[in-house]
Order: sequence, then structure tokens, then C-alpha cells
Amino acid sequence: MQSSVGGCKMSLGLLFNGLLVSIIAALLWEYSKLREHAAVLQEKLHMPQKSQDFTQDPMDYHIALQTLHEDGTRMVCSSKMHTDRICRFDYLCYCTEGDEFVFFHSNSSFMLPNLGSRRFQPSLLDMSSVEDHNTQFFNFLELPTAALKFLSKPVFVPDVTFIFNRFNPDNIMHVFHDDILPAFYTMKLYLDLDEKARLVFMEGWSEGPHFDLYKLLSSRQPLLKDHLKDFGKLICFIKSYVGVSKMTTWYQYGFVQPQGPKANILVSGTEIRQFSKAFMVKMNITRIEEADKDADNGEDESKKDEYIVLFTRLTTRLILNEGELITALAQEFQMKVFKVSLEEQSFSTIVQLLSDASMLVSMHGAQLITSIFLPRGAVVVELFPFAINPEQYSPYKTLATLPDMDLHYFSWRNIKKENSVAHPDRSWEQGGIAHLENEEQERILASKEVSKHLCCRNPEWLFRIYQDTLIDIPSLLGVLKEGMKSRLRFKKSKHTSKIHPGRVREPQCQTSVQSTDKAQLIISWKIPWNLKYLKVKEVKYEVWIQEQGENTYMPYILQQQNFTFSENIKPFTTYMVWVRCIFNNNLLGPFAEVLVCRT
Amino acid sequence: MQSSVGGCKMSLGLLFNGLLVSIIAALLWEYSKLREHAAVLQEKLHMPQKSQDFTQDPMDYHIALQTLHEDGTRMVCSSKMHTDRICRFDYLCYCTEGDEFVFFHSNSSFMLPNLGSRRFQPSLLDMSSVEDHNTQFFNFLELPTAALKFLSKPVFVPDVTFIFNRFNPDNIMHVFHDDILPAFYTMKLYLDLDEKARLVFMEGWSEGPHFDLYKLLSSRQPLLKDHLKDFGKLICFIKSYVGVSKMTTWYQYGFVQPQGPKANILVSGTEIRQFSKAFMVKMNITRIEEADKDADNGEDESKKDEYIVLFTRLTTRLILNEGELITALAQEFQMKVFKVSLEEQSFSTIVQLLSDASMLVSMHGAQLITSIFLPRGAVVVELFPFAINPEQYSPYKTLATLPDMDLHYFSWRNIKKENSVAHPDRSWEQGGIAHLENEEQERILASKEVSKHLCCRNPEWLFRIYQDTLIDIPSLLGVLKEGMKSRLRFKKSKHTSKIHPGRVREPQCQTSVQSTDKAQLIISWKIPWNLKYLKVKEVKYEVWIQEQGENTYMPYILQQQNFTFSENIKPFTTYMVWVRCIFNNNLLGPFAEVLVCRT
Repeated sequence: MQSSVGGCKMSLGLLFNGLLVSIIAALLWEYSKLREHAAVLQEKLHMPQKSQDFTQDPMDYHIALQTLHEDGTRMVCSSKMHTDRICRFDYLCYCTEGDEFVFFHSNSSFMLPNLGSRRFQPSLLDMSSVEDHNTQFFNFLELPTAALKFLSKPVFVPDVTFIFNRFNPDNIMHVFHDDILPAFYTMKLYLDLDEKARLVFMEGWSEGPHFDLYKLLSSRQPLLKDHLKDFGKLICFIKSYVGVSKMTTWYQYGFVQPQGPKANILVSGTEIRQFSKAFMVKMNITRIEEADKDADNGEDESKKDEYIVLFTRLTTRLILNEGELITALAQEFQMKVFKVSLEEQSFSTIVQLLSDASMLVSMHGAQLITSIFLPRGAVVVELFPFAINPEQYSPYKTLATLPDMDLHYFSWRNIKKENSVAHPDRSWEQGGIAHLENEEQERILASKEVSKHLCCRNPEWLFRIYQDTLIDIPSLLGVLKEGMKSRLRFKKSKHTSKIHPGRVREPQCQTSVQSTDKAQLIISWKIPWNLKYLKVKEVKYEVWIQEQGENTYMPYILQQQNFTFSENIKPFTTYMVWVRCIFNNNLLGPFAEVLVCRT
Repeated sequence: MQSSVGGCKMSLGLLFNGLLVSIIAALLWEYSKLREHAAVLQEKLHMPQKSQDFTQDPMDYHIALQTLHEDGTRMVCSSKMHTDRICRFDYLCYCTEGDEFVFFHSNSSFMLPNLGSRRFQPSLLDMSSVEDHNTQFFNFLELPTAALKFLSKPVFVPDVTFIFNRFNPDNIMHVFHDDILPAFYTMKLYLDLDEKARLVFMEGWSEGPHFDLYKLLSSRQPLLKDHLKDFGKLICFIKSYVGVSKMTTWYQYGFVQPQGPKANILVSGTEIRQFSKAFMVKMNITRIEEADKDADNGEDESKKDEYIVLFTRLTTRLILNEGELITALAQEFQMKVFKVSLEEQSFSTIVQLLSDASMLVSMHGAQLITSIFLPRGAVVVELFPFAINPEQYSPYKTLATLPDMDLHYFSWRNIKKENSVAHPDRSWEQGGIAHLENEEQERILASKEVSKHLCCRNPEWLFRIYQDTLIDIPSLLGVLKEGMKSRLRFKKSKHTSKIHPGRVREPQCQTSVQSTDKAQLIISWKIPWNLKYLKVKEVKYEVWIQEQGENTYMPYILQQQNFTFSENIKPFTTYMVWVRCIFNNNLLGPFAEVLVCRT
């Protein structure tokens, strides 16, 4: 970054040029304030005013500039681990020429955590929701505020800004899993990241094919890294958040170990569905409430409205007998079958259709992320090409089987090589293997299953996953019928409560000694406080008894609220006793405070 | 919790009683809205109005109630680890009778993370800044919103509420380290936790002796758990944050391992001092800017104003020869000596005095936390009773030696048993040992140093730490003189920049092969972008060279921006090369992107 006058002239030039006014106007201090800003710059640069209507007080710009000079940058972050961190900044700046964020030090700046050079080991935080990925690290350069006098005049962004990296904005699965869902809930965590927040995507990509979906996160136009250059050489975000929550992601892409579900999934279907609901509202799609349908229609009548969605791909990983498949599905289930593809229908049309579908059938692929819009109880059937083991590529299975997601997931796998059409001569990105040595090509062609591998360029995996498939219809129909049965069982089952028991109350312990080697513990407690407000089918209690000083404990499952324990209970011994409640055999409550019982 | 009418009558009764109006008024919907609220309750309960001035629209209460019914509770948290987590809630409720927080489930509620019963293993989050302490765990009970009709009518708290546990509000060290500093920076992280936030302390203690300090965090009166009962049986916080940042704490109290500095300290003196500065403003204390003093006064003249503060305790851990000590200090250093104690001076008087002191001398104890208010360059001398090893009890040493705290810490230890007065007959909390068996008493009396131990009731530690001490003045003066010398060196040294280098730019690699076994790497780069804006005494570069496939690398430290490496460089080999900049021998920059060089 050179010292500044030339650079500012250039951006002012562009500005009056009118080329950028429409974008900038939305960005800077609203439109009128932009003009003040320009006026101030002009004044400083002794440029003639091209217009007489710069009437408003240029105070805002002055105040921002003065605050930056006096207070510098201030940062406070959450979390002690860089992989879990989101940072809030006052006056974080970005130098477009150096492609560096800048932290200005003053007597009033602070930086929490203040890590010294640990900040670079490896990073202050992850800019995308993909954990610890070295292309996604965030850091900043430090400067004293005194350096401001040598730099281009800063351009201030007054919006509360939400800065992160999209991970792969070309791919609709990545768009939702890595970017939009994480951003949506990050914005729920920080109240000022609201409808009026300005999103800034710093990964450096262009808008991509799904930009309209990103736009739904806020009423303001998101900015790309490339846009920032147009505003000036030094852009200062008055209030910003950097980084995005990883709380909602459920899948890891195999950078460190072969791809699969994340080790510690923190999201349930409830949160995914709240997101889908909110997002459908933003797309102006209304779902027929399932509750209404259940109430109004008998089973037969409701079945008339049921339909299957076949999600297809137009260029790769084709289903070679789509027509035959559609006919077979319609006949077998006596339902309409709608065929959709991302290439042919608008996204909102597809979501509208899925939001009331009974079943979604699709080849493995990014389009399956749309199952977040399926209604509860719907069936998802994912089709895999020959030599691909469904268990090893399970982002959609993992999604569908999240607790409370209430989808019925089934996979089908082509096991007949003769039903598979491979494309060895395509480019390597689309599964071509012609660039490999002959021996390796032959090994791949002979292999019956792709072994586990790391992301992202395993040629055997690409070769197999891009095969087209002639679906063996009888075998697939077998899977689908299982799916429909499962759906029926779900619809018939009463929706059971997902609410966990509270603590059992007032646990008590009485003891008695029968003889020199026999004693009893009489343990009793009251029901959890929330039980009386719930319809719970089955209530049980778990009691753990541990002799003081021992490492093991004896666990008991009981139906009643008190019990006399005499088995293995010794006189003149101290026991620790824990009690908790269990609803419906799987919803565990917390343990009550430990009882210390002396026989 | 009984179903509700009686309970509401009671709280309304109290309300009109006037007893609580002054507290409640500040809490509920501002004062006028409180009256609407009461009016609504009255209406529902068919109670006669005692006053005719309920004129305003009771919409706010209705809206809150409707929102609770429809949306239930919503939670979004930061961080995947419970020890690092703060959660934001809409409509978190608290049942005063059951002493349980309540999460209401509706079709629109969400809970992120949604942990199932992992939520109880061991906890959703820590309510205090002390990590993973089992008395400080937060959780909630779950209920469906349908249960609301069986419960007392909720009382809504409209303020943005900040809910956490104070850890030990009786002790001034704990007050700052565990509560106020963490709360201060948590409030910086969440913008709506501002001046108008309502703090709610849920640890269950009474106000304690330092409540006025807690009050400085917000303009609203903090609430204690006990206060909540007065408002009703079901209190719903419209917007709240639960939990407090651990980012600023530097000490662990020995619950898991003997006490000492935290393993991973994330705070520096800069953040501590920004807090102290802000807190002094809130106390209406202005510090004479050090810069002004340095500029205006010569060294001799400024020395005239210098003074020492002796911080004493009035009841325990006494200095037995205070008068003699003060005289000796004044004579030795030709400075005024001010004696202060928490019992005799107001806290703000003490802070005012410390904010310009040259040296603070004190027995080990909570009062030493006030060193956060000392000016940069001041000396802290901590005195330890006989048989206490200063290295094992170092919260104040750790504080004083934080990077950029710029305090000079020294400890002095009484090594003469005859100068120590112990109190074996006091209560055990104050170090009495009369309750112990004789043998153990004798062992303790004979011991010359307390061994490392866990918190919190080690009788030997309590016995020793509560001893009074006759200070050996010559030996202490020796330590103090060291302190003053260190201070002088600090004042003379130019304050060097703490700014880290940026990345070196445009690193490049050229290679040449000399012979079949000799080759060269010529590595060059440009200076970090921020160097030209800084006065840096010494700039060096570190280069790491790693042969591809090897686990080790060769590190080099260089002064110039390019270098030809030939030692151990082989022809036809690939090397990875990393380059980073180092300022003043200790400020490391980040590595530039790796160079891949093929000879």
C-alpha cells in the first residue's frame, strides 16, 4: 500500500463516474451520508465539487475517523480454541492492496485473546465452518494508529458486518451445510447480526450459482472480497464479526481422516427444521402444516395427495433408465412422481415440491441437501453407483438420521457392473483416469469397491462416483417398499415427547444393619418436577450404588420410587448413591445430588 | 410449583403493599409498564383495581406472553465445550420454587447445541468463570409450552439479562478475577449487554461486602437469586445470556492440581489495564497520565512526587512491626509511605492512591488484586509468612508478570520462625489446628514448608498462611532496592513496540546445481508490510528448510532479505522453505506461504 493521495483520487473518480454509485450507495452511510463522505474526501484533496448538494453535516465520517485514531481496533473473541472462535471487532480494517486485515493499535485498543505469536500457530480463527483448514485461516497485520497518516484515507463501512469465507459456493450441499446454516445460527447468537447485517465473503470466489440463497440471510446485498477493492484501499468495518459457528455442521470431508459424520454432532433435526422453516418463509414458500393434514384427512384421502420426487442430474452421474423408473414408481406406489433437477427448476419450485413430498429418490449428490426441506416422516432414498460403498459417503444419511430429523433414510447400491457406464476419458475432475499410468488404470477398472481415502482428488473415487447407472428396478423397489413401510409405522406411532426428565427430587437414604454381614439401604425419591406436565409412556429410574473407595458401582433399573437394596450391602460401610429418571427407555435425566449412606 | 392463582395473588399483594415497589419498578417494563402488568394480572384474577391510573396499553405483557406460548424458549450457544460456552436465550424462565431454570418447548423453539442427555454430562455450561467446578454447573428443566396453563402466570424481565454465578463475592481478589473482569469482557463480546443490561447473580449468596463494585458494571441494579422469589414463581427473561467468559482469568485455585497460573493464559496486561482504566472512570477516578509526568518533569523533580503504598490487613496475617517498617521505607527511599487497608479506606481512595504509586508492599492476600490499578513500571512486593513458598501461591505474581502488564514483581519470605506468630487455637478457617490429632499438630508445627496441596482446606496451609509476621527489615529492604533498580531501568528503557511483524512478502526461491553432490538454494523475500510504519530496533528473519519426506528441518536466523544456502543442499531434491520475520528478538511473525524448491 503506497501512501495515499493517488489511490483516493482513483476511487473518487470511479465514484463520480457513476459506475459504482448504485452498489456503494447501499453500503456507505446510506446514500446521503455517502455524499458527505465524498465531500469530505474532496475537501481534503482540494478537489472541486461537482455538485452543490453536499449539504449534510459531515460529522459521521469525522467521528468514525477520530474514533479509529483514538481507540484503534478492539477485539473480543469467544472460546479458547481457534477452531471454536468467533471474534467481534470495532474498527477492523482491511487493506485491499495487501489483502490483509489490519489491527490498529492505540492506547485504547484491546485484543482478547491476546496470544502474542501464538496467534499464528496456526491461526486466530477459522474463517469458514470447515474445521482447522489451512486455506481458511484468519489473521491480521498490526499497525500503530500513527501509521494512518501514511495510508489512504479509510472508507468506513457503517453496517454491522459479518465476515467469513464460503467454503465451496459452487456446490449446493456445501452452500447449505458449510455456509448458510452456520451463518443463520451465528446470526442468532449475535443479536446485532440481524436483517440489516452486511455479509462479506472473503474466500475470494465470484458470486457463484447460488448467490440468491446467500442473499436471503440479510436484507442487504452481500459483498465479495473483489467488491472491496472498488471502495478504496483501506476499508474499515466499524462493527464486525469474523468467523462462523460450526455448531450446526454434521459432516467432515475427509481432510484428516476419511470423510464421515463429525465426531461430536451438536445439532438435531429440530434446529435444522427451524432453519428450513425460516428459510422457506424468506423464499415465500408456505408448507401445508402436517398437523392440519393429519387432522382433516383420513388415511386414504391423505394418500391421494402423496407423491414421490425423483431428483435427477442432467450432466453427470445419470440415471440411464429414468423413464422406466418413474413408471415403475408410479405403478408400485400409486402415487404421482415428479422429476426435478437443479438445472431445470428454480430452487424455490423444488423446495415447494419437497416440502410436502412423501419420498425423495436421488443419486448421491449435492442436490440431496434439499432433504432439509422434506416434511417429517418422509423417506429419502440415495442411489450409489457401482463400487461405491454407501457407508463411506454419508452426508445425507447423517443428516436424515439426526435425532428429531424424522426422515427415513435408505440407500441403494448398484452391484451390477454391467449396469454401470464409466467415463475414463473425461477430465480428471469428472472422473477421467486416462492421465494415470496403465497399471493404475487397470487396477481401478478391476476394483469392486473404492477403499477409504482422504479428500479430495482420489482418482478411483472420482472415476466411480461419476459413473452413470442403469437402475435395477426390482431391487430398488424392494428398498423403497421398506421405506414406505417405515413411513407408515412413523405416521401411526404417536409422536412421543423428546423432553428429558428433570432431576429426581428429595432423594433419601435410610439404612439398617441386619447382622454382622447383612445390611440394607432403603433409597427413595420423588418424581422429577416436569413429569406431571408430560405424557410419558414409560418412566424408569436408574440407581447407581458405589461403595466408598471402590472404582466400580452397581447399576439398577427400577420402576418404582423407592427400593430396598440388600444384595452386596455390607454393615458399617459408606455407600454413594446416585439416582436419575429415564423416560421411554432412552431419555436420560440428570443425576440428583449424590446420597452418602452409612450402614 | 402449584398451579397458580394463589401465588400470583401473593406477589400482587406484596406489590401493592409497596414493600417491593422500589426494586420492582426498576425491573419490570420500566415503572409505568409494571403497572400495566399488574393491571393485566388483576384483570385476569378479577381483582378490584386499587388505583384508577392504569391507563396505558397492556399490550407489552400480552405480546410477551403470546410469544412465550408460541415460540417457547430459544437457545444458541457458543463453543462445543461446556467449559467454553456462553448461551443466549429468548424466553428462558426460572422457577423460584423448584430453583430450576425452565426451557419451554414449542414448535418454534430451538436449542443449539442440542446435546440430548449429554447436556447433563456434566453440564451445559459453567455458571462462573471457574472452570468445570461442579458447584457452578448450569442446566435447565424442559417443559412443553402447554404446561404454562398449569403454572403461575409468568413475570417477564424485559431487560437484556446477564446471568452468572459469582464465585466468591466475599473476597476482593475473587471479585475481580472471577467475576468483574470476566463480566466486563463478556459484555464487550455481546453488544446488547451494555450499560442497561441487568445482571443476575445466581450463586445464591447475599450481596456481600463488595456489591458496589459489581454495580459499576451496569447502570441497573444487579439482582440476586433471592430477589427473584419476590417477583413471582415463574420469572421469564425475555433476552438473556448465561455464563461468563473465562478469557481474562489467569489463575486456577487448585481444585484439580495444586494452585498456579492457568495452563493457557489468554489475557495480557493490555486488556487488564483497559479494564482498570474503564473501571476507574466509573469510580470517577482520574489517573495522572504517565506520559504527561514523563514529559514535564525531570527525574529528580518527578521523584519528589513518588510514594510507596503499604497495604495492610487489620485482623489476620498482620505485619507486627508496621511502624518500624514504614519509617525504614521512608528513610531508605526518601519517599512518602501511605498505609492503607480495605477496612479503613474506601476502595476508591485506595485505587486513587495506587494509580500513581511507585511501589506497593503487602502481605500475601486478596488486597493485592488492586495491583491492576498500579501505573506501568510500578513495583509490587508480596510478603509471605514463614514456611510458605511464594512460588506455590502466585496469583499476584502471575498477574504482575503478564505480558505488557509492566509491573515489577518481587516476593519476600519470612525465613525466621522466631519472627512468626501462629494461631493454633483459632477456628480451622483461620488456621487453627487444635481440632487435629496431636501427632498431626506436631508434624505441622515442625514442618518448615507447606507441601503442595489441593484447594481448599489444607490445615497446614491455613495454619501457616494466617501467621502474623515480624518483618526482618534489612532483608526486605534488600528486595525493595532491587525493585527500585528494576523500576529505574524500566523508566529509562524506551518503550519498545509490541507489534508483531507481518508476513514477509513475495518469498522466492532460485536453485542451481554445482556438481553431482552440490547444489544451492537462493531464497529472497521482501520485508513485512508493516515494518515501514514502525520503529523496530532489530529485524531478523528465520528460515526453515526441510527436505521433502524428512521429518526434521534446518533453521537459520538471518539479518538480510536473501541468502544462498549450500550447506547440506543436494541436487535434484525438493525442499520446502518457510520464512518469517522477528522483531527485537522476541516478536515472531507468521510464516509466509511455503516455498517448494526443486534443485
